[in-house]
Amino acid sequence: MVRDRYPSLLLEQAIDAFAKLPGVGRKTAMRFALHVLRQDEEEVDGFVRAIGTLRHEVKYCRVCHNLSDRDVCDICGDKQRDRGLVCVVEGVRDVMAIESTQQYNGLYHVLGGVISPMEGIGPGDLEIDSLVRRTQEEPVREVILALSSTMEGDTTGYYIWRKLQSTGVKLSIIARGIAVGDELQYTDEVTLGRSIKDRTPFTGVQ
Amino acid sequence: MVRDRYPSLLLEQAIDAFAKLPGVGRKTAMRFALHVLRQDEEEVDGFVRAIGTLRHEVKYCRVCHNLSDRDVCDICGDKQRDRGLVCVVEGVRDVMAIESTQQYNGLYHVLGGVISPMEGIGPGDLEIDSLVRRTQEEPVREVILALSSTMEGDTTGYYIWRKLQSTGVKLSIIARGIAVGDELQYTDEVTLGRSIKDRTPFTGVQ
Repeated sequence: MVRDRYPSLLLEQAIDAFAKLPGVGRKTAMRFALHVLRQDEEEVDGFVRAIGTLRHEVKYCRVCHNLSDRDVCDICGDKQRDRGLVCVVEGVRDVMAIESTQQYNGLYHVLGGVISPMEGIGPGDLEIDSLVRRTQEEPVREVILALSSTMEGDTTGYYIWRKLQSTGVKLSIIARGIAVGDELQYTDEVTLGRSIKDRTPFTGVQ
Repeated sequence: MVRDRYPSLLLEQAIDAFAKLPGVGRKTAMRFALHVLRQDEEEVDGFVRAIGTLRHEVKYCRVCHNLSDRDVCDICGDKQRDRGLVCVVEGVRDVMAIESTQQYNGLYHVLGGVISPMEGIGPGDLEIDSLVRRTQEEPVREVILALSSTMEGDTTGYYIWRKLQSTGVKLSIIARGIAVGDELQYTDEVTLGRSIKDRTPFTGVQ
């Protein structure tokens, strides 16, 4: 591929920068750069400041390791929440997804990833030791695994199960079954088998 | 729509910033922000610097108004180019597109947009007066209109034609016809009609 000849080195450098964002190719990066040129200088300064500030000043909650502006995040600091429940998730987005269901009132523990030999991520790179410590030092009744239903997620769940066995804390995993709104005939057989095996008592309403 | 509750104000501000880029929604902006958090601080500083520098330090060529790192751009400064030809385009991307054809050896004139009453862009917002001045002060033989084949592009072309009539400079427009590789039966009738009307002598090779 012939590399485009840009009229300005500054433009080329900005395009290089934007093209490093995930899923952004050089055409989109060019569109972003030309957009920046159409903005007021103050607007661009605000844009740049928001991103620099995020990287330099963001904190992670020292209890659950979720993103936070303070030492302890709003969820861990909330006295209304059930402190006996800890839901283990991979990342920030999972916390937001579960929070938006409004079905959970416990705390979280953000691992910062899942075990993935392919990407060179081992247990030591994740917040697993701090999870074990937490179950010992805090009044944790139950740990809920809410990881992706992938090989990496399952491996991580198994590793945590091994680590928590000796602590005596109850370990559960979120239900796997057919998605709400899905048709039975289009559900894959592994999921369908799982949903039959893990059937729950029916009480007339869903 | 319920607005997501973000765990960190800094994260939310960075997402707000990214979501202002064209075509970027809040989900993509979130992905960008989490990507930023995974980068080294130096990398993020470099990203931010490239964008800030582009906005603050970019120049526009004082002859053709294309983006440039110097007062006069590389194309206008190139003594090998035919200074009697000026190709009028809407923006930077058009210059790059024509340059990549390697079929043009003249100079350019970047209008910075096209006349668009809908968007409040009038002739005074564009580099049209400077084009007229250029045809009078420089040895310009021919002005080539290379604008989009839209109502706005046609309006702008017509306006420039009116302005240049008294100067006596030759005005031409890039050919409109069926695209190379296109099948005749799928070409719209306006384009096809135009391509018959503007037929060119056939010399055995294309």
